[in-house]
Amino acid sequence: MAEKIDLKRIARELNLAVSTVSRALRDSYEISEETKQKVFALARQLNYEPNPYASSLRRQRSKTIGVVLPELPNNFFTHVVNGIEWVARQKGYHVLIYITHEQMEQEISLIRHLQSGRVDGVLASVCAGTQDIAHFRSLHQHGIPLVFFDRVCEDSGFPTVTTNDYEASYHATVHLIQQGCRHLYHLTLPLHLSITRKRLQGFLDALQQYQLPVNESTVLIAKDMDLFYDQLDQLLCSTQPPDGIFAAVEKLVLLVYHICQKRHIRIPSQLKVLAFSNLETAPLLAPPLTTITQPAFEIGKKAAELLFRKIEKKRDILEQMHYVIPSALVIRDSTRSLGQALSNQSAAEWIHSA
Amino acid sequence: MAEKIDLKRIARELNLAVSTVSRALRDSYEISEETKQKVFALARQLNYEPNPYASSLRRQRSKTIGVVLPELPNNFFTHVVNGIEWVARQKGYHVLIYITHEQMEQEISLIRHLQSGRVDGVLASVCAGTQDIAHFRSLHQHGIPLVFFDRVCEDSGFPTVTTNDYEASYHATVHLIQQGCRHLYHLTLPLHLSITRKRLQGFLDALQQYQLPVNESTVLIAKDMDLFYDQLDQLLCSTQPPDGIFAAVEKLVLLVYHICQKRHIRIPSQLKVLAFSNLETAPLLAPPLTTITQPAFEIGKKAAELLFRKIEKKRDILEQMHYVIPSALVIRDSTRSLGQALSNQSAAEWIHSA
Repeated sequence: MAEKIDLKRIARELNLAVSTVSRALRDSYEISEETKQKVFALARQLNYEPNPYASSLRRQRSKTIGVVLPELPNNFFTHVVNGIEWVARQKGYHVLIYITHEQMEQEISLIRHLQSGRVDGVLASVCAGTQDIAHFRSLHQHGIPLVFFDRVCEDSGFPTVTTNDYEASYHATVHLIQQGCRHLYHLTLPLHLSITRKRLQGFLDALQQYQLPVNESTVLIAKDMDLFYDQLDQLLCSTQPPDGIFAAVEKLVLLVYHICQKRHIRIPSQLKVLAFSNLETAPLLAPPLTTITQPAFEIGKKAAELLFRKIEKKRDILEQMHYVIPSALVIRDSTRSLGQALSNQSAAEWIHSA
Repeated sequence: MAEKIDLKRIARELNLAVSTVSRALRDSYEISEETKQKVFALARQLNYEPNPYASSLRRQRSKTIGVVLPELPNNFFTHVVNGIEWVARQKGYHVLIYITHEQMEQEISLIRHLQSGRVDGVLASVCAGTQDIAHFRSLHQHGIPLVFFDRVCEDSGFPTVTTNDYEASYHATVHLIQQGCRHLYHLTLPLHLSITRKRLQGFLDALQQYQLPVNESTVLIAKDMDLFYDQLDQLLCSTQPPDGIFAAVEKLVLLVYHICQKRHIRIPSQLKVLAFSNLETAPLLAPPLTTITQPAFEIGKKAAELLFRKIEKKRDILEQMHYVIPSALVIRDSTRSLGQALSNQSAAEWIHSA
């Protein structure tokens, strides 16, 4: 009954037939995109809830889940998607991958596109700029389950799967300090994301713990990559260069390697470097890169399992909403202190669970 | 008229109502997946052509194109997809990415999934095992345009965008020979694909040109990656190891680097190595890797432009069906001959258009 009233109200306010609104909400090919957008927009405003029958029909139709990524699979997301597909295949589902390119408008437009019922559920890692999550709530209102992974919106009420960003970051920083670093810098992305904030906090707390100085230049935030390259170049060539760099993001550590190669700055003797990274070639770089390696496959697998529990309306989803899978600190030559025997690049990798 | 008859015939043979068949062919939510599959299967058999009106309706509905990849975006496909999305964004289209994981069954199932009209067009790079392309023809019969890129099916009558695999491979092999290599090996994937065959042919022709020996062990084909690692390990540790390796595929050259690191085989003094690769870290490896770098972004951009011409039913698509965009040989330390001054890793990169 409640639904009928909503349909009628939407129809009245948009001056459309109830049947048109109903078809639009079911994404019928008979309705223009333009009308659908109007209807969806108002339906969101009115918190219109499609009835379970309609959404079960929708489910029957798609047999696909959508994976929303902020960027094209880098080494981390590649393993995540493998984990997701491992689960999806067992369920006989197709996996669609959507890229937002860190553009919030793209993210909003994709999510609206998805809520018309093209997929039965969505796994999302949000883009760096995302603060308002109205579009995700609206997806939920359209009866499409959502699970966040890695880049999650905390306290949003949606299930999340993450790694132990704070602890991993803290332990990695302690490792740099124990290797002799005293002028440490943290490279990261804009701090809207909870994971970048947690990684920064772990870094700062370790510095404080060891009474090492922190000033406003200790944290470099990459907004524009070209500007950031120059900024980093100046820092590494300054009269007081850092002796240790911790990159919270894989692509930022590659800039460090490029600059060190160009400027003949020796890693690790002059500068020790580590990063959050699942870079396949990390052990093959000159020198091999010490990484905080995330359990990417497991994150994807767990997130997909959670999503399918919701799609299949399993009750036990309510038991636990938030999963944290620990990362591992993989120590290689890029953080070796002069004394150490880790010499040649057949780097015996010491893996510490961070 | 022709269509009505087909619809009636499909309905009769499947013992369904014509209206049901019609809705099934339009992927209506009112029809079960099972029925749709039956209808699609028979429609394919009968070469049923949906009328242009129906498919234009379908087009209105989706505003998405599908990209079918054999594996998760490695460095090459990442740039390709960026090129595709660059075009799609201008057209106001969403891009869906589907992964076949080199499984032909996956490819067939995805293409069937797509031909129900979820997308307005498809860009595909086929998996290594694909020989029969009936599923792609059937997609075409459902009125959904298709363009092949990189891993194409030649003589299939579909537009293709590729690089100059034969010439690039020939010139790269000549480079290895000029750097002093006399015992050359070619690492590649199973030879169903035209690109792997062309790359192999370019390699073999260069060897013949320089009267270098070719025997059955000169070409190593990677079927199972674990087995291949052992096979490669034995080759590199044998009493007559190669002095030059040409990997036709990026992931195969990384195995070479791993084994050389483990076995302390020095690149390039003991072994010179090059590969088809768009690996972002190629200049940062120990030593920097000489690559045949494909114009990935341009390939994606051109393929998407061709697809949209077909989607928009532009005539001039008929003028040219096959585009070849040349790759570049980027020479780095991994193929340096002892005499050369390319010493340290700030590798001044000599780029030759192959």
